[in-house]
Amino acid sequence: MKSFVFYNPTKIVFGKDKTKSIGNYLHGKKCLLLYGKESIKKNGIYNSVVESLNKNGVMFVEKYGVKSNPILSFVHEAIELARKEKVDAVLAVGGGSVIDTAKAIACGFYYQGDVWDYFTDKAKIGDALPLYVVLTLAATASEMNNGAVITNEKTQQKFNIGAESLYPKISILDPVNTFTVPKTYTAYGCVDAMVHLLEGYFTQDEIDTSIQDGFVETMVKTLIESTGKIMNKADDFNARADFMWAATLALNGLTTAGTGNHGFPNHMIGHSLSALYDIPHGASLSIVFPAWLMYHAKEKSQNISQKIPKFGKAIFGVEDPQKTIESLKQFFNSIGAPTRLSQVDIPAADLDQIAGNAVMLANKWGLTEYTKGVITDILGLGT
Amino acid sequence: MKSFVFYNPTKIVFGKDKTKSIGNYLHGKKCLLLYGKESIKKNGIYNSVVESLNKNGVMFVEKYGVKSNPILSFVHEAIELARKEKVDAVLAVGGGSVIDTAKAIACGFYYQGDVWDYFTDKAKIGDALPLYVVLTLAATASEMNNGAVITNEKTQQKFNIGAESLYPKISILDPVNTFTVPKTYTAYGCVDAMVHLLEGYFTQDEIDTSIQDGFVETMVKTLIESTGKIMNKADDFNARADFMWAATLALNGLTTAGTGNHGFPNHMIGHSLSALYDIPHGASLSIVFPAWLMYHAKEKSQNISQKIPKFGKAIFGVEDPQKTIESLKQFFNSIGAPTRLSQVDIPAADLDQIAGNAVMLANKWGLTEYTKGVITDILGLGT
Repeated sequence: MKSFVFYNPTKIVFGKDKTKSIGNYLHGKKCLLLYGKESIKKNGIYNSVVESLNKNGVMFVEKYGVKSNPILSFVHEAIELARKEKVDAVLAVGGGSVIDTAKAIACGFYYQGDVWDYFTDKAKIGDALPLYVVLTLAATASEMNNGAVITNEKTQQKFNIGAESLYPKISILDPVNTFTVPKTYTAYGCVDAMVHLLEGYFTQDEIDTSIQDGFVETMVKTLIESTGKIMNKADDFNARADFMWAATLALNGLTTAGTGNHGFPNHMIGHSLSALYDIPHGASLSIVFPAWLMYHAKEKSQNISQKIPKFGKAIFGVEDPQKTIESLKQFFNSIGAPTRLSQVDIPAADLDQIAGNAVMLANKWGLTEYTKGVITDILGLGT
Repeated sequence: MKSFVFYNPTKIVFGKDKTKSIGNYLHGKKCLLLYGKESIKKNGIYNSVVESLNKNGVMFVEKYGVKSNPILSFVHEAIELARKEKVDAVLAVGGGSVIDTAKAIACGFYYQGDVWDYFTDKAKIGDALPLYVVLTLAATASEMNNGAVITNEKTQQKFNIGAESLYPKISILDPVNTFTVPKTYTAYGCVDAMVHLLEGYFTQDEIDTSIQDGFVETMVKTLIESTGKIMNKADDFNARADFMWAATLALNGLTTAGTGNHGFPNHMIGHSLSALYDIPHGASLSIVFPAWLMYHAKEKSQNISQKIPKFGKAIFGVEDPQKTIESLKQFFNSIGAPTRLSQVDIPAADLDQIAGNAVMLANKWGLTEYTKGVITDILGLGT
């Protein structure tokens, strides 16, 4: 095992009807209530939250309209509002996009320059407003980690931040809040969580990691099983609960503690697809990940290609790399997640432009082995 | 999945040579340096700690002599010293006994009455001194949870406390620090960690827990494999590291989050054996646990007896309950852990007295189905 620091102070409050308890945790505060679309008004989550805030005398000011692949200009507007209203907390009611936006607001609130400086490493994140979450979409694990990804729509860059002050204080995880998540977004959430687990599993430089491998394999199996059940019955509480907890644990630091250096090459390429074509994050990953695995199986890349049979055996009961990757693609397609660029109308002629964009992130993330040529080759296997 | 709150703010600093960093975290503090025997002077851990404290200008006063099954009178002495010296932190260098003692000191420091009131539920724990740990024995997980067990030697009661203020701030986990742990205590640590995992696994009232079951089975397998390697090579870094991390995760709240109510009946009976005969905690559990499993297999207890085949298949590749329990006993014996009371010279004639002591804890812990008769029957299967 490699050296590591594990620290995760987020308090998870998990279960049916827990949404109603959010006001207890915000007692005496004035918060920025942040959400995405009007859907939380239709499914009753908005009412539960507001009732709980009012019951506990929590003052709040609303800001809504966060979209998926959340954008910098919205963050700017929200920071301005938060300062004007002198809030002392941010309450995110939503999925990863809303939580990530909340994190950018929380740290940007105290920074005199442009918050984008944090994303380009021009400035280091210090204090942040305390962050509270009511999760409505299980996928990104942003509810239990200290990272956020925002797209600068002017520069077409989808970049990330991370800092100790950005762990949510409280995250309410009520599986019932996800009953109304449509099949497509359930599928994308499943892919996102699986790829979070598998980026580390395949790219880590430590080989002797029986605990971490067992955790990853356990959660990938759980995600596959629970997603299958949800596709048949959207309000299957146990399946939604398993899915939600697995997605949260998939990127909270647990499965990579002790595994050494690891990268997020699939997220890197996926972010470029989302930045250029605004396709959902999960859909970009279900295209890129099988292609990425196939590339490394062909290239016989050390560690990655050697681990494919272990993965195949644990998850699909097959050891052959081609069959393993085929099984994974079949699963993705079975839940409605695309596995080819053509399925989301991205022409093969654009590969060069996409690879050019992805290389910017490769440099930022230190994934220098991913040259424009390599990225083009990977994407070529997913056309 | 059942509702739960998961919160664990302890920062784990894991890896070779991390002991030398302890002073960085205690900057500006005056701490009570607490340890057990002189062994940490022989193996160099004491020197590393003191050097790091001095280098960082950390003042400290020493208190040593914590014994296994740590006792209340020692806690009283240490609280008096801590007050007299006006320390503002406790640094535990040791295993579960030292850390548990440190927790009792940390909360007792601020309490005007007898700290034992916390153990008998006469008073509720509030503030505590911040707690720092350098772990030297992997077993109890006290380094990453908020519980402690202390024996009142006057009343022969081994009772526990738990409170949010008792999570260690920092726990340094350096596998090298455990290279000199003798085989016997490595074996007892393995048993303790395994039974921590399995008490929840077998007694939880939720059945649909694929994530938690997978985590438990992963870590039980890792503990069996790594202990085997350590028995052959005491300084096998990877085996010591796997063992250490598994033991820490075995009782930090992760594997029981979402599993509903669960009990610690084996710890209850084991604590009585330790309180009455001062036998090591791990040795008491390796005797009690197989007997407890056998009792429930015979009684066909709901959930417990039904889960034995799942456990047997995952860990030993057998589904038959008798064979599963036999495999477990064989493993315990193979590492030198006893599985019968006679192996630790406790006569069968004492069963009545032991059961009488255990019933006190059964009442305190709400395990009312464990009457004196039931406990006697369980122990009878381990004579």
